[in-house]
Amino acid sequence: MIHTDLCIIGAGPVGLFAVFEAGLLKMRCHLVDALPQVGGQLSEIYPHKPIYDIPGYPEIKAQELVDNLMAQIKPFDPGFTLGERVENLQKQEDGSFIISTSDKTEIHCKAVVIAGGLGCFEPRKPDIQNLELFEGKGVSYMVKNPEVYRDKKIILAGGGDSALDWTIFLANIAKEVTLIHRGDTFRGAPDSAEKVFQLAEMGKINLVLSSHLTKIDGNQHLEEVHIVGKDKEERILKTDYLIPLFGLSPKLGPIAEWGLNIEKSAISVNTEDYSTNVERIYAIGDINTYPGKLKLILSGFHEAALMVQSAFKFVYPDQKLSFKYTTVYGVNSF
Amino acid sequence: MIHTDLCIIGAGPVGLFAVFEAGLLKMRCHLVDALPQVGGQLSEIYPHKPIYDIPGYPEIKAQELVDNLMAQIKPFDPGFTLGERVENLQKQEDGSFIISTSDKTEIHCKAVVIAGGLGCFEPRKPDIQNLELFEGKGVSYMVKNPEVYRDKKIILAGGGDSALDWTIFLANIAKEVTLIHRGDTFRGAPDSAEKVFQLAEMGKINLVLSSHLTKIDGNQHLEEVHIVGKDKEERILKTDYLIPLFGLSPKLGPIAEWGLNIEKSAISVNTEDYSTNVERIYAIGDINTYPGKLKLILSGFHEAALMVQSAFKFVYPDQKLSFKYTTVYGVNSF
Repeated sequence: MIHTDLCIIGAGPVGLFAVFEAGLLKMRCHLVDALPQVGGQLSEIYPHKPIYDIPGYPEIKAQELVDNLMAQIKPFDPGFTLGERVENLQKQEDGSFIISTSDKTEIHCKAVVIAGGLGCFEPRKPDIQNLELFEGKGVSYMVKNPEVYRDKKIILAGGGDSALDWTIFLANIAKEVTLIHRGDTFRGAPDSAEKVFQLAEMGKINLVLSSHLTKIDGNQHLEEVHIVGKDKEERILKTDYLIPLFGLSPKLGPIAEWGLNIEKSAISVNTEDYSTNVERIYAIGDINTYPGKLKLILSGFHEAALMVQSAFKFVYPDQKLSFKYTTVYGVNSF
Repeated sequence: MIHTDLCIIGAGPVGLFAVFEAGLLKMRCHLVDALPQVGGQLSEIYPHKPIYDIPGYPEIKAQELVDNLMAQIKPFDPGFTLGERVENLQKQEDGSFIISTSDKTEIHCKAVVIAGGLGCFEPRKPDIQNLELFEGKGVSYMVKNPEVYRDKKIILAGGGDSALDWTIFLANIAKEVTLIHRGDTFRGAPDSAEKVFQLAEMGKINLVLSSHLTKIDGNQHLEEVHIVGKDKEERILKTDYLIPLFGLSPKLGPIAEWGLNIEKSAISVNTEDYSTNVERIYAIGDINTYPGKLKLILSGFHEAALMVQSAFKFVYPDQKLSFKYTTVYGVNSF
């Protein structure tokens, strides 16, 4: 069992900065994140993209901001449990919590800080008859290992970058690739769309536009996909695999079951200390909501600073908190 | 007359960052500051001091942060009126304001953002009989030109760094220097205190500890200072000048007369948009107060971001605001 003062769920920029603010008040932190590395969306989705609205940085690459935050919290030596999803929260008799993860790691803490960004991500599923029946039996929502599809007949569905990219990639691996798209133009990079149209002209893939999936069927394993086009007529395509690629949708995941007040998929907090309706549980960053809320990293930084002042009383119930400025004392004196 | 969308009072880090957030919404800004340069306290009081709690900067010198903020807001080309103190606020029929300064500069704006830090600073005055009678006639609260004291008898009072530093400096200039301090140890740098004790031992200055001023007197000009020591007996010291150095105390200044709700020398605001009780007037940064308020630069950044979303309606009453991320669009597209 890991013991800490604050368990921070989410190791994105806001979760990381919370370690700094907690450290100034001599509170130790342990961070848990479902992703295998720190940085949240910044490292996972757009590490090389410049950000322009971090105060004091006219421009900074997302990964560079994460690296700087890691350097900033280094003196406070936080613990990390990465690549594991938080699952359960158990309140103890003394008010503290034990949090357990998907890999059965247990963390005992005096307060919980949810800095989960947009939450976990789940694939958006199309509305098709029998879909769940064939999940893992021919239907999957992401391409984990392309070799599975070698010399097989596959159908991809979608109009964004991942549908285009995987169509191009799998054209060289699968026996037959069909891409089905509801529209007749693509949302993905123009360059990739161009390539897909060329592959279709060359007869290397089947491109079915202005059509959507209605039903799938098979016997033990997926065998056929039903589609309907502009003419409203149903066509049946034989296939071994169906890969719907309609993007990821944010989900609160197990946190939604913790009795917190949720409003529009976000956790309601009090702006005085960013506490939730459950004592000792705080929510900061994109995952919270309050009147005026903006999903900005810089707002999460502010929320972290106010939050620790309040969490302090659960970690040091007998001490009075005196506010000190780093400008006067430096970090090492904390 | 200068015309702008937002008139920002105070060109410290928070006022500067407000220009960036306003610029993203296509609102122009004009900043007014009583100091002759931008940066507020950071540039005026501790430019070379490192700050440790700016998120994403493990350490940054105060002046460097100001320089970076200036670079960040450059695309939005704000106007500046520096070295002038804001004096009057006149509401116009259409709801806009005209602000005028100590030098009669007039600025017409659609909303006012008070980012005045701790406000103007005024010297803390000791509680002594006749003090005001001799201000400018032998009594002054700061040393502007040390040459005034050449070959004169002077009394300094105080126990902090400025009292120590000026005692050491003026010992070589004045005919006779006396330092009076209420305690028997000093709050200032140990090194300076050491030097003052040495000067006293060497007979170069008179050091009077555990004593306080009670009264001053003279005829047209200051002539004598009355002090009382531990023995409760009054002593009279002949002098040409008295310089009480008891620090600076923040004052709201003329802003205090604008009808804003004031609580403990700070302006009460609503945390939804950091608006004051007067429509079209906002307060951000150290000058405002609300439940949970911390006087941190990073909180002022957050306050600036939420404030502009609300001020927008006074600048563009017919437009609906849509929130865009710089990560997606960059700064130049705004």
